[in-house]
Amino acid sequence: MLSGPSGAGKSTLIREMVKEIGPYFFSISTTTRAPRAGERDGVEYFFVTREAFEADIAAGHFLEYATVHGNYYGTSIKPITKALEEGKLVVFDIDVQGHESVRKRLNAITTSVFITTPTFEVLKTRLFARQSDSLEVIEKRLTMAMSEIERVDEFDFLIVNDTLDEAVQALIHVAKAARLRRDETALNAFKTQWRKL
Amino acid sequence: MLSGPSGAGKSTLIREMVKEIGPYFFSISTTTRAPRAGERDGVEYFFVTREAFEADIAAGHFLEYATVHGNYYGTSIKPITKALEEGKLVVFDIDVQGHESVRKRLNAITTSVFITTPTFEVLKTRLFARQSDSLEVIEKRLTMAMSEIERVDEFDFLIVNDTLDEAVQALIHVAKAARLRRDETALNAFKTQWRKL
Repeated sequence: MLSGPSGAGKSTLIREMVKEIGPYFFSISTTTRAPRAGERDGVEYFFVTREAFEADIAAGHFLEYATVHGNYYGTSIKPITKALEEGKLVVFDIDVQGHESVRKRLNAITTSVFITTPTFEVLKTRLFARQSDSLEVIEKRLTMAMSEIERVDEFDFLIVNDTLDEAVQALIHVAKAARLRRDETALNAFKTQWRKL
Repeated sequence: MLSGPSGAGKSTLIREMVKEIGPYFFSISTTTRAPRAGERDGVEYFFVTREAFEADIAAGHFLEYATVHGNYYGTSIKPITKALEEGKLVVFDIDVQGHESVRKRLNAITTSVFITTPTFEVLKTRLFARQSDSLEVIEKRLTMAMSEIERVDEFDFLIVNDTLDEAVQALIHVAKAARLRRDETALNAFKTQWRKL
């Protein structure tokens, strides 16, 4: 699971990381908000109606979901379970609240990384430099970042995205190390296999 | 911390790993047993008298210690604290009992790896192949290995040393990821620095 303030470079880091880590599954969230210009269904999000989302809630299909500014956002459990069964590393780009929920509810070993800029000032500079957001959106993101940084303690690893290359390498190390963790079932299978004469 | 059965290739893996991981400190144990042929004071162990060891116990100088076959083995705390203050990654080659003690007592973030062969049979073959131990010693090691494997669950990561190169790479990933973990003090310092305007 990868969290951190918007503007810290998460998407770029994830894109570079997944090239190097072997079989993975990138978990795509489902939302009821309207797609923005350029967003494609099944790429940035799965875009669904409020009725469909609520039916999925009722059916217990979400690992976690939340309401943000009146829209639902959620993570479907079925594709994740399938990917885990296939031995894939499941990659989540998730906010700090979603991270907490997944940690509590996912019956699998989780590894989490908080990705941020070296300082708040750097984040501010990067958000203004990319010129893709309105002043209002930037201010909202900066306020959000100040509260997100408070929760860095809940994560296993901290990556400070100062130099892109170094941050990518750091993330690859974490992902490859994450593959070396095994849940109780896998460890018991390993022990049985190991002892077999 | 690196544990695992004797014969799993730990020493080789550690030697290759430390070349790649940046500033580190390899923790050397202290013992009251006599040096074996080829063993040097301050390399394999610090060799001390029983009186000196017991004085260190009384003075609280050990992070952990144990008695094995009538000899003391222990880990001095001072060089470790110093190395951690210098920002070094402290590397321990430690048995499963020592691992448990260090986990409980070291006031720092720990990362642990259990290293083993793919199977018991492979371990047996490797121990016989290296022709450095008596049959009695090999038997003792194999018995020990059977009980050590039971405790693999206590470790953060499992590395199966099947192909040396792959195991070395895996260990490097874990060590580099371990550097991305920060204790509460370090995280608080980071947060303060991050928010500074």
